[in-house]
Amino acid sequence: MAGPQTPLSERILKGDIRALARACTLVENRVPESAAILKGVFPHSGRAFTLGITGSPGAGKSTLTSALIAELRSRRQRVAVIAVDPSSPFSGGAILGDRIRMAAHHEDPGVFIRSMATRGALGGLAPTTHDLALLLDAAGFDWILIETVGVGQDEVDVARLAQATAVVLAPGMGDDVQAIKAGILEIADVFVLNKADQPGAARLEQDMHEWPRPLVKTVATSGEGLPELCQALESIRATLPPLRAQAHWDYRLRQMFAERVVARLDPELVAQAVRRVAGRECDPYTIIEEWLKV
Amino acid sequence: MAGPQTPLSERILKGDIRALARACTLVENRVPESAAILKGVFPHSGRAFTLGITGSPGAGKSTLTSALIAELRSRRQRVAVIAVDPSSPFSGGAILGDRIRMAAHHEDPGVFIRSMATRGALGGLAPTTHDLALLLDAAGFDWILIETVGVGQDEVDVARLAQATAVVLAPGMGDDVQAIKAGILEIADVFVLNKADQPGAARLEQDMHEWPRPLVKTVATSGEGLPELCQALESIRATLPPLRAQAHWDYRLRQMFAERVVARLDPELVAQAVRRVAGRECDPYTIIEEWLKV
Repeated sequence: MAGPQTPLSERILKGDIRALARACTLVENRVPESAAILKGVFPHSGRAFTLGITGSPGAGKSTLTSALIAELRSRRQRVAVIAVDPSSPFSGGAILGDRIRMAAHHEDPGVFIRSMATRGALGGLAPTTHDLALLLDAAGFDWILIETVGVGQDEVDVARLAQATAVVLAPGMGDDVQAIKAGILEIADVFVLNKADQPGAARLEQDMHEWPRPLVKTVATSGEGLPELCQALESIRATLPPLRAQAHWDYRLRQMFAERVVARLDPELVAQAVRRVAGRECDPYTIIEEWLKV
Repeated sequence: MAGPQTPLSERILKGDIRALARACTLVENRVPESAAILKGVFPHSGRAFTLGITGSPGAGKSTLTSALIAELRSRRQRVAVIAVDPSSPFSGGAILGDRIRMAAHHEDPGVFIRSMATRGALGGLAPTTHDLALLLDAAGFDWILIETVGVGQDEVDVARLAQATAVVLAPGMGDDVQAIKAGILEIADVFVLNKADQPGAARLEQDMHEWPRPLVKTVATSGEGLPELCQALESIRATLPPLRAQAHWDYRLRQMFAERVVARLDPELVAQAVRRVAGRECDPYTIIEEWLKV
């Protein structure tokens, strides 16, 4: 039996949820020992379906995520959620009704919810999020839902690194929000027209006709449209282009490399360079060329 | 006289606006020759005041920026604007009224407006934005306003790299928007309570009392409060902590180094690694360790 002396990676692979939660914390804090854990679980990853769920604040992403969990659980799928949306009840920013809806999932052992406590430093959110997804994948979850707010580049990157991305839209949002949405439409594999029972839904559906992606209408609060959404997602999963995994790793490897290289810079060397540049003694571009020569 | 054969950096220093616009494009596209331009202008930078203007969509950032330009012009200041907010009329995403307000500035030679045409790849928006700010600084603009939407980490980074940051708030925005705002409150050097004539302004002002930062009330559409805002900004400028410049360069140097190191990776080496990782032959963490040894 796996005891507390057993490496965390082994305990995770055996389904130990406490070990998984502990490993998530280590990975999120980027402590050195997290590398061994990630290496240990890596060969056992690659089976989960990683879905980015993004959209403007107010589109009902969290309620939809919650409804999707319920639908997937009814299909006996194990579901993990990583919430990187600061306005999401999964992340702690919540209105009461949403919190109550979440509570049910928190008691279900087939559901694991993790919110990103900290924003990424240099390199952004994406690396940590995807190391977490790797852990959850190896731990045997069938679906990994990554909820982000689709506004910043960083959040879009997180969603883009998922195997597929659902963009949640809703009628009756202001022009400002519409403008912001533009940047995320292109990363969608499927559109979810949530709050489909509200005024303006037909108009929004018509507006979205030009985009060559499937659109599923839902009312997340009542569960309406969720079976159809699951079906659409399963169909996307079944036809994922194999090149997407390669593009994913191409991006990830470059990002990981950048992060490590910067972490290895000599602090004294950096401090000295900072003083020279801030004092306009030397330009930063020449400094970087010097560093690259070492 | 500076002719077309004169290096761009010299022409920029002499106030040649066409040369400046051309250099902005080169820097934004990250072409190799942009390094020489940036090196050439660097010793002449450091005089402008770089102000990040951020806030939720709908707070009226663009109208405020436009009003601030007018106020600064009346004080004979030369003003450059870098717009990285996708919903901003400066960036092209506009409603008609805003566009008309902008048009006046476009014809004023003391105003230079540049919108970020592309989102940054690896490393984000911040590096390019701040290379642009350096150009504009060396070109002799007194103020550089960087307008971003304060939602993503990337946008917050852009604002943070400015010498000071104004966070624009407005009454009557939904709870969702309020939640998003939380992350940007802490980077504010000054709060601008815009739309101060609208219901809820007094309540919002009260809510903001706990934050130890000055708050200026404005009605950007009428110009009300703009002289007071300028005064608050001048006062911030006069008392900037010298360590802020050092923190700026510390972050920038690490970021620039990461970007260059990744750009120098052998594409064939990367492609091979990608195939091995995607095929689960080798974990990515071991690959990165190998790369670091070279």
